[in-house]
Amino acid sequence: MSKTAATAGFMSMKGGGYYSKATIGAKHTIDRATHLILEAIERMDPADDGTPFTMSDMGCADGGTSVSMVGTVLKEVRRRVPSRPLQMVYTDLPRNDFSQVFQNIHGQTDIETYIDEIDDLYVFASATSFHKPIFPAGTLNLGFSATASHYISEKPGVISDHVHMVGASGAEREAYVEQGRLDWERMLLNRARDLAPGGRLALFNFGIDEEGRYLGSTGGADMFDTFSRLCADLRDQGVITAEEFVNTNFPQSYRTVEQFTAPFRDTANPVYQAGLRMEHVETRVVACPFAVDFKEHGDAARFAHEYIPTLRSWSEATFASGLSTARPVEERQAIIDRFYDSYEALVRGAPDGHAMDYVHCYLIIEKVAA
Amino acid sequence: MSKTAATAGFMSMKGGGYYSKATIGAKHTIDRATHLILEAIERMDPADDGTPFTMSDMGCADGGTSVSMVGTVLKEVRRRVPSRPLQMVYTDLPRNDFSQVFQNIHGQTDIETYIDEIDDLYVFASATSFHKPIFPAGTLNLGFSATASHYISEKPGVISDHVHMVGASGAEREAYVEQGRLDWERMLLNRARDLAPGGRLALFNFGIDEEGRYLGSTGGADMFDTFSRLCADLRDQGVITAEEFVNTNFPQSYRTVEQFTAPFRDTANPVYQAGLRMEHVETRVVACPFAVDFKEHGDAARFAHEYIPTLRSWSEATFASGLSTARPVEERQAIIDRFYDSYEALVRGAPDGHAMDYVHCYLIIEKVAA
Repeated sequence: MSKTAATAGFMSMKGGGYYSKATIGAKHTIDRATHLILEAIERMDPADDGTPFTMSDMGCADGGTSVSMVGTVLKEVRRRVPSRPLQMVYTDLPRNDFSQVFQNIHGQTDIETYIDEIDDLYVFASATSFHKPIFPAGTLNLGFSATASHYISEKPGVISDHVHMVGASGAEREAYVEQGRLDWERMLLNRARDLAPGGRLALFNFGIDEEGRYLGSTGGADMFDTFSRLCADLRDQGVITAEEFVNTNFPQSYRTVEQFTAPFRDTANPVYQAGLRMEHVETRVVACPFAVDFKEHGDAARFAHEYIPTLRSWSEATFASGLSTARPVEERQAIIDRFYDSYEALVRGAPDGHAMDYVHCYLIIEKVAA
Repeated sequence: MSKTAATAGFMSMKGGGYYSKATIGAKHTIDRATHLILEAIERMDPADDGTPFTMSDMGCADGGTSVSMVGTVLKEVRRRVPSRPLQMVYTDLPRNDFSQVFQNIHGQTDIETYIDEIDDLYVFASATSFHKPIFPAGTLNLGFSATASHYISEKPGVISDHVHMVGASGAEREAYVEQGRLDWERMLLNRARDLAPGGRLALFNFGIDEEGRYLGSTGGADMFDTFSRLCADLRDQGVITAEEFVNTNFPQSYRTVEQFTAPFRDTANPVYQAGLRMEHVETRVVACPFAVDFKEHGDAARFAHEYIPTLRSWSEATFASGLSTARPVEERQAIIDRFYDSYEALVRGAPDGHAMDYVHCYLIIEKVAA
């Protein structure tokens, strides 16, 4: 789930741990991989030496999807190193709603938080981009980031016949792959600087798995192909211009497992040289909660009605930014409404195969002493 | 200026350091005492030992009124200890607009910021109350807080014949003084825990000076007496009930210099025992920028029109909370509008003597080794 989606989808959480369906998939992605982080701490075997132990969630959105995992992990660290003060640092970009992060973590919302269950714990936020150093060098012990690194720092050109790089080809695709490589290595180099020797990174990101699957493309209808086709329909109907279609591109790069792991396999790579080593990699598919529900209730109209808003929550900004600013705002809004209405009608008419299954690559990285 | 006022009044700042008048007084309060902090750093004489140096602004609101001072101070620290990473931590309550803080400090607004002028600097936020530990014990080097400690953690009862404790008497006043003492000592004890040995606190707070002056009461019309009288007029006119008048009380305690300094003069006080020592105390009056302008332009209607909104920005919540929730919201809003309209009419008719001059007590505190 994109950062926008994680926030926008956070409609409510009831006492027992109920999340809105729009967020539960992103939360499952993290929760079900918590053991990977606990195992990394086991290997890290931190010294009980009284110095601060710092963990971070980089690209945290409202902090809600990671809160169960962070609580579990910090309790384990507290158990292992009772003498060490714990610092938990939530990071995202300056426009993120950090007040919501703090309200969630400080127990001022319905979200179940860990803050009163762990002593000697200090919670902070940072709005420094993860493409820069976030911490004094060598002071981060455990860095976590989920579903944030697919956003690239700039669009390296247009994709003329599709809306997402997963549907691009040739030089257009290469440009997105290359931007993805640059951003990935830059992010990793800055974490290599942040991390203390023996520190770990847990990076769970959208990617393309060994079978070529990715978000919304796991065997049935391809979500990004559907986005692209419906957008092309608007062009063919004269609703938008050819130029607007060309300009509609997600500023994202989905990396293959090969691309995620390349900096750790090449001993000459600056990331390897900076001391980062891969300890673990795997990919997983987490099922779309709306499609799972549809199998139960079988109501196509209901499925379409519930499913489209979660797609819209993280994709609308991209479709809006493709439209010419010469159009009045109301006209742009009407085009976007028509676009998502067409997607809903499509799903309602032929629901089978539609699903935004999550496909993540899970990496555990160690920082070795220089 | 209250935190609310500092935020609400932040209308704009142009390139060369122009602030809206609603904030310039609060900014002057800080800027003109910057030398006290620089002198404290001189005495502190921090070691250039490569460890992180941590500064904080506790009760920062949007970070705008302190940004010039923080930049000056951090540049001086950088000059003295080039090997030490600098951490700047902005704290306030969870509902504070931390996104605005980060946008201001990261240079995404018109506010002139220091962030790109100081290397090896890391900016964070915390939403932990300053009545609790904010940092791992012994890791804060320089704590700053301005115009925040007059808010008390709870209202210790009503003030039956006034709206603010400065106009209260007898047991009612004593209750506010006592709550002020408890909160002050609790805040200081938590800072004694946060501070590194040799660390310093710079605390600039609303108070009552040696001549009995306080915010809005420096010889002319008394602002809080005016608030109280106009509120009583509404009661006498039957607009609000006697109970509503009684329930309208600022949750604030203004301390005298004697009260501010008591924990440092009594060697048996827990604050003294925890290692805090007073290095410097002084009081100052910073002139109301609206009254200063009025002396220039002489236009009473303009003065009244410009002056009341800044009072309203930080006092409205108190007057709103005194009204019965049995009244519809629109009715409450109409009463509040009428209240401030009456204040504006009063100033327009007889402008002389109205002024919200700032009266602060400036304390510099040292943490000595245990």
